[in-house]
Amino acid sequence: MAKKDMFAEFKEHSVAEFFKKNKQMLGFSSRIRSLTTAVHEYVSNSLDACEEAGILPELYIEITNISGDHYVLKVRDNGPGIPPDIVPRVFGKLLAGTKFHRMIPTRGQQGIGAAGVTMFAQMTTGKPVHVKTSRGDGTIYEMDVMIDVKRNEPIVKNQRSYPGNWRGTEVTAEMREVLYNRSKYSAYEYVRRTALANPHAQITLVEPDGKKTVWYRTSFEVVRMDKVGKPHPLGITVDDLMTLAHYVTKARKVSSMLRTELEAVGTKSIQELEKLVGRDLLEKNPADLQWAEAERIVNALKQMKFRSPSTDVLVSIGAEQIKTSLRENLKPRYVAAVTRKPKVYSGGIPFLVEVGVAMDGDVKGFELMRYANRSPLLFEQGACAITQAVNSVGWKRYGISSLQDANVVIFVNVVSTHIPYVSAGKQAIADIPEVYNEIRAALMEAGRKIREYTLKVSQMRELLAKKRILEHYLPELSTALARILDEDEQRIHQILKSALEDRYRRLKELEEKIGAGAE
Amino acid sequence: MAKKDMFAEFKEHSVAEFFKKNKQMLGFSSRIRSLTTAVHEYVSNSLDACEEAGILPELYIEITNISGDHYVLKVRDNGPGIPPDIVPRVFGKLLAGTKFHRMIPTRGQQGIGAAGVTMFAQMTTGKPVHVKTSRGDGTIYEMDVMIDVKRNEPIVKNQRSYPGNWRGTEVTAEMREVLYNRSKYSAYEYVRRTALANPHAQITLVEPDGKKTVWYRTSFEVVRMDKVGKPHPLGITVDDLMTLAHYVTKARKVSSMLRTELEAVGTKSIQELEKLVGRDLLEKNPADLQWAEAERIVNALKQMKFRSPSTDVLVSIGAEQIKTSLRENLKPRYVAAVTRKPKVYSGGIPFLVEVGVAMDGDVKGFELMRYANRSPLLFEQGACAITQAVNSVGWKRYGISSLQDANVVIFVNVVSTHIPYVSAGKQAIADIPEVYNEIRAALMEAGRKIREYTLKVSQMRELLAKKRILEHYLPELSTALARILDEDEQRIHQILKSALEDRYRRLKELEEKIGAGAE
Repeated sequence: MAKKDMFAEFKEHSVAEFFKKNKQMLGFSSRIRSLTTAVHEYVSNSLDACEEAGILPELYIEITNISGDHYVLKVRDNGPGIPPDIVPRVFGKLLAGTKFHRMIPTRGQQGIGAAGVTMFAQMTTGKPVHVKTSRGDGTIYEMDVMIDVKRNEPIVKNQRSYPGNWRGTEVTAEMREVLYNRSKYSAYEYVRRTALANPHAQITLVEPDGKKTVWYRTSFEVVRMDKVGKPHPLGITVDDLMTLAHYVTKARKVSSMLRTELEAVGTKSIQELEKLVGRDLLEKNPADLQWAEAERIVNALKQMKFRSPSTDVLVSIGAEQIKTSLRENLKPRYVAAVTRKPKVYSGGIPFLVEVGVAMDGDVKGFELMRYANRSPLLFEQGACAITQAVNSVGWKRYGISSLQDANVVIFVNVVSTHIPYVSAGKQAIADIPEVYNEIRAALMEAGRKIREYTLKVSQMRELLAKKRILEHYLPELSTALARILDEDEQRIHQILKSALEDRYRRLKELEEKIGAGAE
Repeated sequence: MAKKDMFAEFKEHSVAEFFKKNKQMLGFSSRIRSLTTAVHEYVSNSLDACEEAGILPELYIEITNISGDHYVLKVRDNGPGIPPDIVPRVFGKLLAGTKFHRMIPTRGQQGIGAAGVTMFAQMTTGKPVHVKTSRGDGTIYEMDVMIDVKRNEPIVKNQRSYPGNWRGTEVTAEMREVLYNRSKYSAYEYVRRTALANPHAQITLVEPDGKKTVWYRTSFEVVRMDKVGKPHPLGITVDDLMTLAHYVTKARKVSSMLRTELEAVGTKSIQELEKLVGRDLLEKNPADLQWAEAERIVNALKQMKFRSPSTDVLVSIGAEQIKTSLRENLKPRYVAAVTRKPKVYSGGIPFLVEVGVAMDGDVKGFELMRYANRSPLLFEQGACAITQAVNSVGWKRYGISSLQDANVVIFVNVVSTHIPYVSAGKQAIADIPEVYNEIRAALMEAGRKIREYTLKVSQMRELLAKKRILEHYLPELSTALARILDEDEQRIHQILKSALEDRYRRLKELEEKIGAGAE
């Protein structure tokens, strides 16, 4: 019977099968974007690992073209290395990792990235990725990793280990259906922007034509991304509380669970909460907590006062570092930067916004550089709250009559333990009102700094225009003055000319000062 | 040591945890869109089930507002029902279903939809979805289904069965963080557009204010979606062939595998292939097929000739049905429709495009209605190949000087066994050249039909303008003529007036004919 047959076909699929069939969801769409995605996944993992381990990152990226759309990507870092028993799951299993469940502002969030590259590599070339890693303990491990797509489990081949003094991880992936160039969506652009937002990292890129570019570090301060946040009582949902109660906590009472698992909940808060929801509920075993009870707790928490979510888990680049980095990398005439104080969205998720602006000098045209936790966002520009905020600002007020016609780079970095991405591609930040408004505020604060510069520039332009007019009329003026004063025309001309040149010299001095040292 | 701790946190996650944390990827983003997504998932499943079972669909959708952002959604169909042992996995497990692995032009493709709604419901209200189903065999089953998110496994409660004469499935989901209205992204608009593209379905919608709308069927032809396609040799990738060889086929030789699993491969093709890749390879056991060997086969297949992919798996609405549906639903003055012949993209995936145009009458303003396999696409309009194709057509040539100022609905349905969506949200079709060009061709073919109408309309406008001028000058004309002919002015006026009215009457008749019966 047809009806029975329909359900005879009912099957279950692994998440690897799903993403293999929908690889565009992971960023493997066009040829250029696929390569950029692969570079992005490896580079983010390397930077995250270095920062968690407190190491100044040193990355080596090499892209080789075998023929046509067939490339090899190698990324090596000086990070902490990966224990050999963990390697297979990092590179050979989707949805496995250290970052998914922790409140920490890492670049990666989902435990898909590196394994996604493995899947793409094996889909297009049938080959495994090759991993070499050592924890600096005298032993180097190498192995080939593939994914058994039907089961979403790693397949390891050619594993070997040998003595050696080195620390870090090196991954090599062979891919087809990719393309390298230097366009604005390319791996090159991705690396360039990564270097800009990560001045503590030294990054080397070797392009397929052999050209080697090194972005040297401009900051020697170790970035530490090792603090893990806790959810704030004002940001927690009923569902979150249920998950904590049933899967996470080891506490035996709801009251101690709230104290242990949430931020800013102490004895006082528990006493206050007891008045609102009753003692019985707080004495309950979390494993027995019901939805309606959790809902009562969440509603009660919302009526209470707590100190703001702690924001020390947020790792900003810092205004000074942004300015140094923009200066070194873009050679502009003027830079300004702002790192705002942390804010909170959805009641409990901390975030902060930093903005840098680089103008004139070697900066040609307008460029918006978007970042989330220092990771460049190259795609889906239109859908991003950063773009929308930039477009909403009245730049004229700050002396830029049209962004499109100005020589200006606007650099925006949003830092958060949970970046609210629009989609799986993680390329656009959703326009959550608190986040959008804070980006606008940061842009306007930067705008006010720019204004000093743009004002000076326009004053200078006026003065120079006046000087040009004077120069133009100098001969006639000299003649007229000579007649009135009954003086020698040549002498008058000489006096006026040297006065004008003197003034010009002072203008030049003034002009050179513009930008330098300015905020 | 910090290094060890890093990996102590290494964990694996279920796909349910992943999508719970990234629910926006499944379409649960804004309040309006979340409700539309839930309606979409249930409605698509109901229509797919009816069509697979050869049943004329009858859907009942009821949306009730409990308070604020808290709603109940009920969707009932007269479909084939679901066996009680399958129900838990349909509604309580992500990535389980009948559609993922088959080449069939269904609305659902991924086995996520209905379980995604369950997850959203339980995340926002803590409640299960309630399912009632019967296969029409005298027994009705009811149960509550939730998802154990940590394991991506269903949890079933309150299961019961009782005798009853009914066939179909009814799902009830209680959700928060949703919103109902009639905006252009709303559940209402989704249902309205679904009705338009599915004239064989009767759909009833009861809105929160109790207002009941019934879209009656305008076609009584059963739509059968029960033919399953096979991959075409020209569209197959090396990875596809490896999957067939290692996971799918029961054939013992590569040659018989190719004949069984691929379309259009017969004895002749195998003989030709043997000359290109050698007999040994074709004699091999598929289980032993290596990547390089599969690559040789795929490359050889690309040099050979095959009949075009069979396209009888594609189920179109049909031009006549589109016209009837647009007429009934939109009450336009003029309709035209085109169903193009099937084409193939990426060498082996069949697709076809149909276009309907409705103009004037009750149609006010411009509206583009996009569909994929009869499912309305409401979001991500800008990213869609349909939008891009519509914007690329020079409508002036077809008598529409500006789409934005015209009263016109353009209806586009793309049918395929694999719709190339841009992203997980399944709301935009990627601009693959073959697909884009075919959409354009269909629009232009429709445009040529419109031209007859727009031409008549503009001729009519000219005639009416002339009449108006004559009317205006009638008194003066009568006076002048009376003098020349030496006739009574009143009489002349009378004659002219009645001649003009006669002409006007004929114009009216002509005008009424425009549109009616036109293509």
